[in-house]
Amino acid sequence: MRTRAAVAVEAGKPLEIMEVNLEGPKAGEVMVEIKATGICHTDEFTLSGADPEGLFPAILGHEGAGVVVECGPGVTSVKPGDHVIPLYTPECRQCPSCLSQKTNLCTSIRGTQGQGLMPDGTSRFSMLDGTPILHYMGCSTFSNYTVLPEIALAKVRPDAPFDKICYIGCGVTTGIGAVINTAKVEIGAKAVVFGLGGIGLNVIQGLRLAGADMIIGVDLNNDKKEWGERFGMTHFVNPKEIDGDIVAHLVNMTKTPFDQIGGADYTFDCTGNVTVMRQALEACHRGWGQSIVIGVAPAGAEIATRPFQLVTGRVWKGSAFGGARGRTDVPQIVDWYMQGKIEIDPMITHTMPLDDINKGFDLMKQGQSIRSVVIY
Amino acid sequence: MRTRAAVAVEAGKPLEIMEVNLEGPKAGEVMVEIKATGICHTDEFTLSGADPEGLFPAILGHEGAGVVVECGPGVTSVKPGDHVIPLYTPECRQCPSCLSQKTNLCTSIRGTQGQGLMPDGTSRFSMLDGTPILHYMGCSTFSNYTVLPEIALAKVRPDAPFDKICYIGCGVTTGIGAVINTAKVEIGAKAVVFGLGGIGLNVIQGLRLAGADMIIGVDLNNDKKEWGERFGMTHFVNPKEIDGDIVAHLVNMTKTPFDQIGGADYTFDCTGNVTVMRQALEACHRGWGQSIVIGVAPAGAEIATRPFQLVTGRVWKGSAFGGARGRTDVPQIVDWYMQGKIEIDPMITHTMPLDDINKGFDLMKQGQSIRSVVIY
Repeated sequence: MRTRAAVAVEAGKPLEIMEVNLEGPKAGEVMVEIKATGICHTDEFTLSGADPEGLFPAILGHEGAGVVVECGPGVTSVKPGDHVIPLYTPECRQCPSCLSQKTNLCTSIRGTQGQGLMPDGTSRFSMLDGTPILHYMGCSTFSNYTVLPEIALAKVRPDAPFDKICYIGCGVTTGIGAVINTAKVEIGAKAVVFGLGGIGLNVIQGLRLAGADMIIGVDLNNDKKEWGERFGMTHFVNPKEIDGDIVAHLVNMTKTPFDQIGGADYTFDCTGNVTVMRQALEACHRGWGQSIVIGVAPAGAEIATRPFQLVTGRVWKGSAFGGARGRTDVPQIVDWYMQGKIEIDPMITHTMPLDDINKGFDLMKQGQSIRSVVIY
Repeated sequence: MRTRAAVAVEAGKPLEIMEVNLEGPKAGEVMVEIKATGICHTDEFTLSGADPEGLFPAILGHEGAGVVVECGPGVTSVKPGDHVIPLYTPECRQCPSCLSQKTNLCTSIRGTQGQGLMPDGTSRFSMLDGTPILHYMGCSTFSNYTVLPEIALAKVRPDAPFDKICYIGCGVTTGIGAVINTAKVEIGAKAVVFGLGGIGLNVIQGLRLAGADMIIGVDLNNDKKEWGERFGMTHFVNPKEIDGDIVAHLVNMTKTPFDQIGGADYTFDCTGNVTVMRQALEACHRGWGQSIVIGVAPAGAEIATRPFQLVTGRVWKGSAFGGARGRTDVPQIVDWYMQGKIEIDPMITHTMPLDDINKGFDLMKQGQSIRSVVIY
């Protein structure tokens, strides 16, 4: 069949909207009609050419929601008509990683997914002249129709709006999950969130959900104060507007009359800046503070600290897709949205048709959007 | 009163054995007759001048065992005749750190201890000419008699031999505790221990106690293979004798027919070398491997890695005094020794009188001892 898609023809060029060929699903695969997709920094990271593992031509997009239209042989967990969210981190429930019960990083199709291919080593997409087009993160939600492995689909309730829950496919789950699954924040905790973009705001609402007492947001842009407060931030710090070191400033803020050591119970880096990652670790409380790296750093960048920071009890961790097992946890996050436990609507600052997708990238690069969503 | 002590008169000089003055215990303090003391790398680190926080003149030594001879006013938890192990990490049970139940790093007397003083800001030691001599790590076990805060004494069973259980005051607890308290290693785990000195061997026997399946020891010295095996090591790797990268080698060793990802569930750095610390982190299993820094790095040295290592699920932690709460946990470790659950005797490779303490330092620096113990 044919479908309309935004194709990343080569690095550094705008996406090109075109008709492409899409083969039907093979064994264990599912064709999905994408109804809405968010535009994420990771798409831009790859499109820009900064991602050393980026491959072209490809159909980007990994934050979607849609409806199953056709199932390949052997598919049992979804059927045509089911509402689904594509998962760039699949959940096969069979591999050593899934069975470990200690990580969400399913490895069953990691090799082919990283090459832009379906699990059988081929692509379902091609140009009208027959040139193959690669998949991206196993999702390719910048195509109106796409094919995914069954294990990369979370079945969700049918009354949830596609143009909002698509954001659960990446940003919402990454932020909230880092709080709940990776850090396991407890009621009464003190936390610092570095970087109040879409991920940071979702970390903030995750902290609110977890019952944190003190939720400090750190950003260089004062406009983010109002955004943070909207989702539960209790204190805002602009590092440019304080005297001295940001780490000492944060440690002081978290002191109490009883606890004159200070430091956060949990910190989250949502910037991708390795200098900030170090500040996030060092702003943790001596003895038990945990710092969670969420942001994606530039290729080759390294984090560093004195080992004394660890020996005196700070813990350095990271989180991918919020530590969420997609098929198990994503439907629950959709429920939380429908129950009003978490908010998404105010974060979707812009919507647009597929034809205008490059405007969505521009808004993101200019810092004008929290999230742009393409509605098919 | 007067007591014999080995005094660190200045950095880089051998200890000087001499008579010194010792004042009696003030409120909340206890005088202890030290019966035996181990000589530890940390003492050498300070004596050499490499420790930027080292102060002189001081009486070093922090790994002792002895008998209470006199209690100052208000002391309730020990009485004359009790057998005790001095604690360089005290346990006050009243400060924010102790009450957090999340760390062993009691902070109640941290400030004065770091300055070489008792909690009231003065020293109990002086030269015969009246020149004050500083305490060290709150212990000063290189003196036959010493004074410590009550909260820095673990009361232990009276039938345990001083010349063995003194080692529980630092090395044994640091190694076994890192496994049990910090990493919380579970039965069946795969672990790698970098550096098979005294700490490394105690990590190994901690792993054996915890029921680890695979205990890989890494050392540049092949003589350590026999030592490691004696305490439960199942595999030995000399990085100089393998082809290629040590991390890849270790990851391959830990692969199974089912799990072709590979990597250790837990790794422990017992070297203090920041390059090794990085290898230890990166040899961890994707998704859940934890690396515990135990070794003390040179002043100013930094650890580094790509944040991707954390985002894909590896955790970087550290451990001080094995995460042990001294007054609570040390008596139990003494019980384990007396019950034969852990070994100490073979690790005490040399004993000597106080007069020969500098020979103990020489043996340690030359790598000829696992542990030298001074018997008073």
